[in-house]
Amino acid sequence: MSNEQAIGVFDSGIGGMTVVRALLQDLPHENIVYFGDTARVPYGPKSPQVVREYALQDTEILLQHNVKMIVVACNTVSAVALDVVQKRAKIPVIGVILPGAEAAVQISRKKRIGVIGTVGTIASNAYTTAIHHIDASVKVFGQPCPLFVPLAEEGWIDHKATELIAKEYLFPLTLEKIDTLVLGCTHYPLLLSTIAKAIPSGVTMIDSGKATAAVVKQLLEKEGLKNDSTLKPNLQFFVSDLPHKFAEVGERFLGTKLGRVQRVTVNG
Amino acid sequence: MSNEQAIGVFDSGIGGMTVVRALLQDLPHENIVYFGDTARVPYGPKSPQVVREYALQDTEILLQHNVKMIVVACNTVSAVALDVVQKRAKIPVIGVILPGAEAAVQISRKKRIGVIGTVGTIASNAYTTAIHHIDASVKVFGQPCPLFVPLAEEGWIDHKATELIAKEYLFPLTLEKIDTLVLGCTHYPLLLSTIAKAIPSGVTMIDSGKATAAVVKQLLEKEGLKNDSTLKPNLQFFVSDLPHKFAEVGERFLGTKLGRVQRVTVNG
Repeated sequence: MSNEQAIGVFDSGIGGMTVVRALLQDLPHENIVYFGDTARVPYGPKSPQVVREYALQDTEILLQHNVKMIVVACNTVSAVALDVVQKRAKIPVIGVILPGAEAAVQISRKKRIGVIGTVGTIASNAYTTAIHHIDASVKVFGQPCPLFVPLAEEGWIDHKATELIAKEYLFPLTLEKIDTLVLGCTHYPLLLSTIAKAIPSGVTMIDSGKATAAVVKQLLEKEGLKNDSTLKPNLQFFVSDLPHKFAEVGERFLGTKLGRVQRVTVNG
Repeated sequence: MSNEQAIGVFDSGIGGMTVVRALLQDLPHENIVYFGDTARVPYGPKSPQVVREYALQDTEILLQHNVKMIVVACNTVSAVALDVVQKRAKIPVIGVILPGAEAAVQISRKKRIGVIGTVGTIASNAYTTAIHHIDASVKVFGQPCPLFVPLAEEGWIDHKATELIAKEYLFPLTLEKIDTLVLGCTHYPLLLSTIAKAIPSGVTMIDSGKATAAVVKQLLEKEGLKNDSTLKPNLQFFVSDLPHKFAEVGERFLGTKLGRVQRVTVNG
């Protein structure tokens, strides 16, 4: 294992790029290989069985690039398939659920935490389990928001219709008097300002991607795997469909050109 | 070939059930085998290359059930992959584009036709090409409505947010003074009342699924393939993921119980 090897990151599509942005902020010299399964996005409404099959195929693609660790930048996969990725990869694997749960427990004073995510993530109860593992006295309130992913993908970031949908989704959580809200889907940071309008101003939002980047940094330092280079990192992007669209939208996510995005075929 | 053999119908997911409903109305004694690729839905935002791969795999599943003809109940596949299905199937294949185009040309007086559909369907220009093949003097105005599929799938059928989104999508078509609007996606009939509110009252809406059922009936009669049985037909439903959700939503589509919905694995 060499420190110059890349961090592998995968997601069902473009959402994981919010995690890449956070990684580049915390670890500006790490090489990164990203795979987005844009041919089969979204994973959120799919069954755990299918998500586990796809997660294994995504893992294979990153392993082909000889990565030193894997970041599962997809809440749905982190919720229902982290074990299959860990078992296959035999290198360090970090999902986004545990870091998000830890950050939320640290911040919440009232011990009332809301979690929003895809149908798959919320149905899995993965955040509730993770939070209770840290502090069993915390009350956790989950709310699936299935339209947020297509709204973010289509760029309806700051629109009256999106506001109405956000208000309807988040209203039950406001009734529960939460003081902390976990954005349990990597797409949701894109809708930050619209989500903020739908919740009371005192509620703190937790971006799981940012929390995950901090944990990745700790792990690399602890394992002696941090890249000591001071050069500009090598970023490589692979998708299973529509590389041009990914390059265009990804540029908005990162605020920088992505270079060539390559299409790879997944098994299916 | 026997008349008792089923009509095969496939779609990217649940949307094709509006075509099944129309088929059952026009041809109440035909056996039907339906496949919905719910593991990989939606097809609309995917590249033609990927849609063609998936269409071929969907075709294989229907052929295993020894169907007498295939109805491609998905506008995106009909727009970009009908040729690959026809080439592989070697039995009659009918897509939804040509029947919808024919119905629209017959009805439009002002020869100004709007077409709404997925990004893939509209980008393909398949409706424009089909309409111009019938009457080159017709003006055709296409408009992609990518959020309509998730809104329909999630049941936001009659909601203020859906109205706002519909108005924004359809406004450019109202400026073009269309008198006919083709619902170029099998999901859209579910949003009929909301779409109707977003267009002037004089505009006639064409449901491609209904137009397709009429063409299927003609074809079966012409080829001597119509099922002469007067028994209740045998309906079989297969999906690539979430059979229970399909059974539940499908019941709403058909207004009748679906019986057992079986999960099959597609190549991938």
